[in-house]
Amino acid sequence: VTVQRHIVIASVEPSIDCGRHPVKRIAGESLPVEACVFRDGSDVIRVVLKFRRAGERRATEAPMTASNPGLDLWRAEVPLPAPGRTLFTVEAWTDRFATWLDEFRRKVEGGLTDLGSEMAEGAALLDALAERGRGPDRKVVAGAAGSLRGAGDAAAALEAVGAPEVVEAAGRLQPRADAVVHRPELEVIADRPLARFGAWYEMFVRSQGTQPGRGGTFADAERRLPDIAAMGFDVVYLAPIHPIGRTGRKGPNNSLHAGPGDPGSPWAIGSDDGGYTAVEPALGTLDDFDRFVAAAARLGLEVALDLAIQCSPDHPWIRQHPEWFFRRPDGTLKYAENPPKKYEDIHPLNFDTEDRAALWAEMRDVLLFWIGHGVRIFRVDNPHTKPLEFWGWLLGEIRDRHPDVLFLSEAFTRPPMMKALAKVGFSQSYTYFTWRNTKAELTEYLTELADPGPADYFRPNFFANTPDILHEFLQKGGRPAFAIRLVLAGTLSPAYGIYSGFELCENGPLAEGTEDYKDSEKYQVRVRDWNAPGHIKGLVTRLNAVRRENPALQELANLRFLEVDNPQILSYLKRTPDGSNVVIGVVNLDPFHVQEGLVSVPLNEVEVEGDVEGEIDVEGRVGVVRGGRFGAHDLLTGSRYEWSERNYVRLDPAVGPAHVLRVEELEA
Amino acid sequence: VTVQRHIVIASVEPSIDCGRHPVKRIAGESLPVEACVFRDGSDVIRVVLKFRRAGERRATEAPMTASNPGLDLWRAEVPLPAPGRTLFTVEAWTDRFATWLDEFRRKVEGGLTDLGSEMAEGAALLDALAERGRGPDRKVVAGAAGSLRGAGDAAAALEAVGAPEVVEAAGRLQPRADAVVHRPELEVIADRPLARFGAWYEMFVRSQGTQPGRGGTFADAERRLPDIAAMGFDVVYLAPIHPIGRTGRKGPNNSLHAGPGDPGSPWAIGSDDGGYTAVEPALGTLDDFDRFVAAAARLGLEVALDLAIQCSPDHPWIRQHPEWFFRRPDGTLKYAENPPKKYEDIHPLNFDTEDRAALWAEMRDVLLFWIGHGVRIFRVDNPHTKPLEFWGWLLGEIRDRHPDVLFLSEAFTRPPMMKALAKVGFSQSYTYFTWRNTKAELTEYLTELADPGPADYFRPNFFANTPDILHEFLQKGGRPAFAIRLVLAGTLSPAYGIYSGFELCENGPLAEGTEDYKDSEKYQVRVRDWNAPGHIKGLVTRLNAVRRENPALQELANLRFLEVDNPQILSYLKRTPDGSNVVIGVVNLDPFHVQEGLVSVPLNEVEVEGDVEGEIDVEGRVGVVRGGRFGAHDLLTGSRYEWSERNYVRLDPAVGPAHVLRVEELEA
Repeated sequence: VTVQRHIVIASVEPSIDCGRHPVKRIAGESLPVEACVFRDGSDVIRVVLKFRRAGERRATEAPMTASNPGLDLWRAEVPLPAPGRTLFTVEAWTDRFATWLDEFRRKVEGGLTDLGSEMAEGAALLDALAERGRGPDRKVVAGAAGSLRGAGDAAAALEAVGAPEVVEAAGRLQPRADAVVHRPELEVIADRPLARFGAWYEMFVRSQGTQPGRGGTFADAERRLPDIAAMGFDVVYLAPIHPIGRTGRKGPNNSLHAGPGDPGSPWAIGSDDGGYTAVEPALGTLDDFDRFVAAAARLGLEVALDLAIQCSPDHPWIRQHPEWFFRRPDGTLKYAENPPKKYEDIHPLNFDTEDRAALWAEMRDVLLFWIGHGVRIFRVDNPHTKPLEFWGWLLGEIRDRHPDVLFLSEAFTRPPMMKALAKVGFSQSYTYFTWRNTKAELTEYLTELADPGPADYFRPNFFANTPDILHEFLQKGGRPAFAIRLVLAGTLSPAYGIYSGFELCENGPLAEGTEDYKDSEKYQVRVRDWNAPGHIKGLVTRLNAVRRENPALQELANLRFLEVDNPQILSYLKRTPDGSNVVIGVVNLDPFHVQEGLVSVPLNEVEVEGDVEGEIDVEGRVGVVRGGRFGAHDLLTGSRYEWSERNYVRLDPAVGPAHVLRVEELEA
Repeated sequence: VTVQRHIVIASVEPSIDCGRHPVKRIAGESLPVEACVFRDGSDVIRVVLKFRRAGERRATEAPMTASNPGLDLWRAEVPLPAPGRTLFTVEAWTDRFATWLDEFRRKVEGGLTDLGSEMAEGAALLDALAERGRGPDRKVVAGAAGSLRGAGDAAAALEAVGAPEVVEAAGRLQPRADAVVHRPELEVIADRPLARFGAWYEMFVRSQGTQPGRGGTFADAERRLPDIAAMGFDVVYLAPIHPIGRTGRKGPNNSLHAGPGDPGSPWAIGSDDGGYTAVEPALGTLDDFDRFVAAAARLGLEVALDLAIQCSPDHPWIRQHPEWFFRRPDGTLKYAENPPKKYEDIHPLNFDTEDRAALWAEMRDVLLFWIGHGVRIFRVDNPHTKPLEFWGWLLGEIRDRHPDVLFLSEAFTRPPMMKALAKVGFSQSYTYFTWRNTKAELTEYLTELADPGPADYFRPNFFANTPDILHEFLQKGGRPAFAIRLVLAGTLSPAYGIYSGFELCENGPLAEGTEDYKDSEKYQVRVRDWNAPGHIKGLVTRLNAVRRENPALQELANLRFLEVDNPQILSYLKRTPDGSNVVIGVVNLDPFHVQEGLVSVPLNEVEVEGDVEGEIDVEGRVGVVRGGRFGAHDLLTGSRYEWSERNYVRLDPAVGPAHVLRVEELEA
């Protein structure tokens, strides 16, 4: 006879797409889980959260407590002490003894008499539990059964069996006869903190040299590292470092024919010098690379490599694995196309090849190779042109071996694919940030990204520019535009990045109406004066320091926008859950004109909740607000203001287009 | 070798709880389905909606068209011609010929030359399709392959193979090599229109007599039907009509001991005269019941019966199936309890009995018995105290045989269980409406109910009172309160009901602070003057007529609230999707005082969309608004007003506490 199912586990949150994909958190945090669990009638149920590290069989149980009984919500937390995958689910069952006790208590307290039958029933239930048990629990439960039988009256009986130790022992012995377990088992990926919070600096190794006409090397790049570290970056992301193909090589500004001295695009991967596990000889040796990684580490910088799955016509795989590529009817290899555009210097991989198991394994081994050389971050080029199934497999293979490895998805495509890549395992994603410049665009887009739904799996990385994207706003707006976009990227998103040259406010386009750089490093070597007049390295350095010092800026879902009576001024507030750190951003989005306006700040948003010493203020809270006023300390300039619910601001883009204000107590 | 999966069907909507439960619609409508479907790269995909009636194996396919390409959304509709269950899902695959054609077109139109290789590839694709085909499609495709080979230039080739008939034939022949089908299959239940829209009248047969001290019969009730029909009701719902137990029978006002003449509670079901398939002899015979049902049908009224699964101590099942009931340690049967309350006149059924298959089947047969007597609606008493699994099974058994049968759930419990019962198959549900009386309460609750999420499966039935619920608002507010609650119930919710006596404004409570009626019909026979002074039958009649004449009032999800600058006045607007019927409700929630205020009406809400003859007005729409003004025709009183964006209202509860205004053209 099967057991009648009474209990419904209607929902377990967080859960993405019915549990098909894991949620993401940061190791060191815990994952609060809330479940809606109930049953027919009024029997008492027990609900537990069960969790286990991936690969372990035994689950740990934590009792869930009613967090909102009116909505049948139960809550407990999954601890996430270290990076890795954890599986969790919820189990619930009816507790017959607790049900009996609840009814018995209501009868006794309601003044009913003649409860002998009830007491006999309770004693029988306890007897049955005692028979199942051993050790102390058995003793407690058997003793309770005895005192129930011997009790003079119902009140005395209630006192004997209602004691916490009896209830707890009975709860432990209670068979889970009608237990229901939520399916599917859910998953949470705990990543290291850099998955959420970090500042990235993108560069081409070959442009780190100092002599005009001569390409830079790993050694040159190594000499650049102290400057990058001093600006406060966390990650140095390198354009591909592999040997560059000769056949079909592109010349300066994407011209079809390269001259003998033209270095070609680093994304045309592979030559006689090797492929994905080799380095371009012009940059140095693998040993030089190792030294570069070690030097970065000493400065607190991590190195991120680019993974672009496409081969130059000279890549060794073309000969070793011809079946991995597409062929035209005449038998020649197909190059990459986006009709009518042609990319004659690269061949796409055929993920439908019958030999794809070997292709997939090879890609995994490429990653393991670089992980062996100290790399823990990969920026993946155009992942949306390869099957999601492949990425799910590849990222899982790597994560299971190296839970500290992070992947950044460069999927400039439609939102569903961008999100799907995050769901199958990418740690971070490029976004549409570069194309969101007006107040309306920024407000709408950030509201969408900060929503807890997508924020559970999609972590944005706001690159302010890339080698492919020099937005018109930067082309036209000059130095103030760079300052504006830098502050927005670095304060709106916990992870952000710039592509080198941004700090120098480089903004020459290939042509009017394009987003391509003129004389792009993609096709030629650049040599720069890294301290050229007009740079904004001071602002970059200050901003990165402010980000590190203010935990409110290290999250995204805590973002809320503030009202400003000027459509050219964007203002927003971020606070830590305990309110101990509250930061207000105010940015003039107009790089050409002074803008002024009134920023509205709901006082409860800047207040500290809970038991903090101080005077009682707004709505019974205590904190920094005194008589409706609080301190606003501009962390970029050091200025201190007295703020209240409505605050006049005036921002001159030529001087400083933004305030980044920390809420503080007013000085006495 | 398995086929590489490229396509993701990320979502198919509407879907409830990951497809575990069906959505509900009305037969005669269709179900728009929207799916998010995409793949890696830029290959062309085909997406179809597949649907089949439950029990049929063959699915029909309808092509889905891109409804929002930027979000990869595809749309098609499931037709729902008749009541019953329909299963549906989405299938998608890559169309290799369409992909080739798309790229070829972009190359030709982009001015590329030297496309011989592309043309050879296209011809080979068409050859392969022709080999798979037969009949006209084969001929078309083979012909296209030929003209592609013979084409003088690429432009001519494109013209030959890009013709719609080629694309369509190739699409039909295209193998679905990498097809992906959404799982699980989703379900929609189509109910008849009464499931959503109808006015219910609840009564006790025994109180339909005319002679004091003598209980009414089916024949008496039959004589009452014209009055009920004249008021415009659709459903007559009867308190249980089965034999009433003797043992433990309750007396007037729920007193513990019944006198010899006391009839007992009709919810104490079963006596020596029979149980669930018998009628109480005092009411008449089964033939009398049949005559009552037939008489109701002639008047356009349907009869709803009560299903209360609990037995009086005298029910035949007590002897026939002692194992279906709970026993105390001394072997006696347990009566129903909600400690410390006792219900000595009823025994609950034990749904965990080992013999439960027989119990379940018996309950199904009880329903089939009454269905055999012309009943198509059941109001289920306290379904939340029985297992959801049972209800899912029972309602499915009935629905599969009789898709026109409706079930109303009386689950006055917490929201998750209330919703869960709707999810497992109840057609309608009682709600918290009686306890939502202030503007804030009504706005919040109706906003929740009208949300498309819950509205997909949960259909409210707003009873303004029940034999158990005489709200303080009615007790204290007198006749105006009854008018207020009637208009609210009947215009906010498509389904609503009153329990008899409401139209007479009966409002005597058992005691201060209770919601029980004094001298409740639950325990004694009542004889009323159905035209007693002070009744509101005129308003009931008018309201029911207005509901029938205005399709906007026959839906819920179209509700939106309007701004009024007085917290005692609630105003809302409902419009049909095409805007051809727009109704505005304005209700004074204060039964004691005149209230006045300004109602704000966004003009675009009252406008007609689309190609309607008339002058162009607001935002390029055409319709009833002329120069910012429109007609507001009070359907309760016949008064006509000229309204605009802001409108003064003044409502005297003693005269008429509400406007129900139809938006009309202003008379010239």
